[in-house]
Amino acid sequence: MNQLEKLTQALNSLPGLGPRQAKRLALYLITERQDIGQNLIKSLEEARDDVHYCQKCQGIFFDKADTCRICRDPDRDRSVLMLVENDLDKDSVEKTSVYRGLYFILGGSVPLTESDLKNTNLRQEQLKKRLEADSEKLQEVILGFSYTPQGEHTARVITKYLADFTNRIKITTLGRGLSVGTELEYSDADTFKHAFSNRS
Amino acid sequence: MNQLEKLTQALNSLPGLGPRQAKRLALYLITERQDIGQNLIKSLEEARDDVHYCQKCQGIFFDKADTCRICRDPDRDRSVLMLVENDLDKDSVEKTSVYRGLYFILGGSVPLTESDLKNTNLRQEQLKKRLEADSEKLQEVILGFSYTPQGEHTARVITKYLADFTNRIKITTLGRGLSVGTELEYSDADTFKHAFSNRS
Amino acid sequence: MNQLEKLTQALNSLPGLGPRQAKRLALYLITERQDIGQNLIKSLEEARDDVHYCQKCQGIFFDKADTCRICRDPDRDRSVLMLVENDLDKDSVEKTSVYRGLYFILGGSVPLTESDLKNTNLRQEQLKKRLEADSEKLQEVILGFSYTPQGEHTARVITKYLADFTNRIKITTLGRGLSVGTELEYSDADTFKHAFSNRS
Amino acid sequence: MNQLEKLTQALNSLPGLGPRQAKRLALYLITERQDIGQNLIKSLEEARDDVHYCQKCQGIFFDKADTCRICRDPDRDRSVLMLVENDLDKDSVEKTSVYRGLYFILGGSVPLTESDLKNTNLRQEQLKKRLEADSEKLQEVILGFSYTPQGEHTARVITKYLADFTNRIKITTLGRGLSVGTELEYSDADTFKHAFSNRS
Repeated sequence: MNQLEKLTQALNSLPGLGPRQAKRLALYLITERQDIGQNLIKSLEEARDDVHYCQKCQGIFFDKADTCRICRDPDRDRSVLMLVENDLDKDSVEKTSVYRGLYFILGGSVPLTESDLKNTNLRQEQLKKRLEADSEKLQEVILGFSYTPQGEHTARVITKYLADFTNRIKITTLGRGLSVGTELEYSDADTFKHAFSNRS
Repeated sequence: MNQLEKLTQALNSLPGLGPRQAKRLALYLITERQDIGQNLIKSLEEARDDVHYCQKCQGIFFDKADTCRICRDPDRDRSVLMLVENDLDKDSVEKTSVYRGLYFILGGSVPLTESDLKNTNLRQEQLKKRLEADSEKLQEVILGFSYTPQGEHTARVITKYLADFTNRIKITTLGRGLSVGTELEYSDADTFKHAFSNRS
Repeated sequence: MNQLEKLTQALNSLPGLGPRQAKRLALYLITERQDIGQNLIKSLEEARDDVHYCQKCQGIFFDKADTCRICRDPDRDRSVLMLVENDLDKDSVEKTSVYRGLYFILGGSVPLTESDLKNTNLRQEQLKKRLEADSEKLQEVILGFSYTPQGEHTARVITKYLADFTNRIKITTLGRGLSVGTELEYSDADTFKHAFSNRS
Repeated sequence: MNQLEKLTQALNSLPGLGPRQAKRLALYLITERQDIGQNLIKSLEEARDDVHYCQKCQGIFFDKADTCRICRDPDRDRSVLMLVENDLDKDSVEKTSVYRGLYFILGGSVPLTESDLKNTNLRQEQLKKRLEADSEKLQEVILGFSYTPQGEHTARVITKYLADFTNRIKITTLGRGLSVGTELEYSDADTFKHAFSNRS
């Protein structure tokens, strides 16, 4: 396997890149735009060297501190904690500017075949510590999961885990109903059921 | 233009059928499957001859009566009326088996450029009569519209129209939030905003 | 099943129309545009009543004659006969204005599981008669089939059939190579092989 | 801009990667699979450091030699030279195992707005040298370009350039006709025209 094939294989191992696109990209980076390849190397090295995980929310960040910008922000509401699967979900919620509480990043979803958080590689230890440390101020935990089988299952498992842990903190899930763009004709029964019972 | 071309044109005038598909279909109905063509003629003629509009909800139905099966059903809840754009939306809601009240079919949506129901060709006269006839029992009007610009606009115009007409009847809209399949990462700000404020 | 459902089913039985599109279309033809439904009925009836099959090429046509416009045309070259699968293929070739000979329409392709033309429902009897009637003038039969497994198989079976029948008439197939829009990078090996050996 | 955003931007600058995919990929490479990131860095560096351009065909290769494996191969036919746009096209032709001559890689296509090879950044100098060096053995130049407007234009410009240079060498283009998968009904007029005149 020559160096073009090795690079093609490396690019092909990135999720979402097919073998043809990988080969085009490999040739592009070798022949036409070595500058883009060089920039990619530099960005990967810097990101790898500078990444930290926040001791409070477990989110990634890059400045020199123990906790991330959101967890340090004195204006955030410390009585609410939203559990999300990963950094992308946190960023997505942040972009809406609606939520002003704190986050905890689980590190993934609970597999559909597993019903005990302890048997997963998610951050249950860190979650436990976080809940204990904040137990006085904390009044609500929001389960910020997708409305998909995985998200639903994760919510059930986490709810059970939290129930064992505390019955003082309120646990809520995001509301269901019509989403932007939902046409009544094409809405499924579960969505309509929620939309109907949440009418106001 | 010969008879094949005329038939192709007639099929091409159906929404969603392109010229190529229309021509294939025309040849298929003429040469291979005249029986399907014959069945189509018969079904079209019968549906056209037997269709009625329900005097109460304006929905279409086919048996010999003044009102449709739903409007005659003594078990339906007469205190709630759901306004929908068309028969397809009504059928879609019926399939969920969640709603047990009655319907009124507007006959379309209010154009985005129009803010007065009276300037549209929607069934405002019949809606008025319906509301007057049922005014004693009626307690809630549900605006069963899509969560799209057209549906939102129609809801606003109808709300104004109903407000001029009565302030006794409660007007509600379907709840918004995450729909089945919505991934948090891809949910838009408006949907998340509703999902967040409707959390429970 | 009511008349709407019957019409929906009739529309759904047309190739390429799904159940949802069929229902939308049914309601559209019943409520919004009865005129289009009426036009469709009329076109179907006229096409069905007026269609003829040309005694020479077996193509469909609609005027009062024994043979179609092309077969009657004294300017067409009677020494060449192109065999095609159906009327659509004939029309497609006619539109190119390249071919000036006559046609014979087989009425379909030979199934991949069948190797003898006699066991198919294609028009082998009419083909035989046609070849016998034109045997003096006819010098070339062009196999105008798609470059697909079905088309290739049909060509093989027809070639064998014609070989049994005559060895005086030249049998040709359409040339292979790069098609309009073919990018070298994405061209398959068989296409390239033909393109290479047919280079000029 | 933090290191995650810089890496996202670097990935987004790769052709075919959108901003969302770039961000997912960036997080994936930083948090979940640093090993894949590391492998990508290594492959990019090695490919960049070891790449050579063949002095004869201008194709890229990676071993320590002046010319690439194909140009050194004594079994290749030195009387035929195929001109292709880039390394991907050469690889695509090689995969077919049909062509046994040599290649010259132009480095791109001639822009549609340019009619003189000298005004482009393609390798006309190297092409000239190559033709001069091989002039004794060389009998045919095959224009191995796509059947697209760009490919057709490049072929015209190159043909003119070669005509100025020599009239001894035969210039050929790849044959046109039906490609694998072409259905007669959907074949365009130009393709059919070629298929018809190349029938055999």
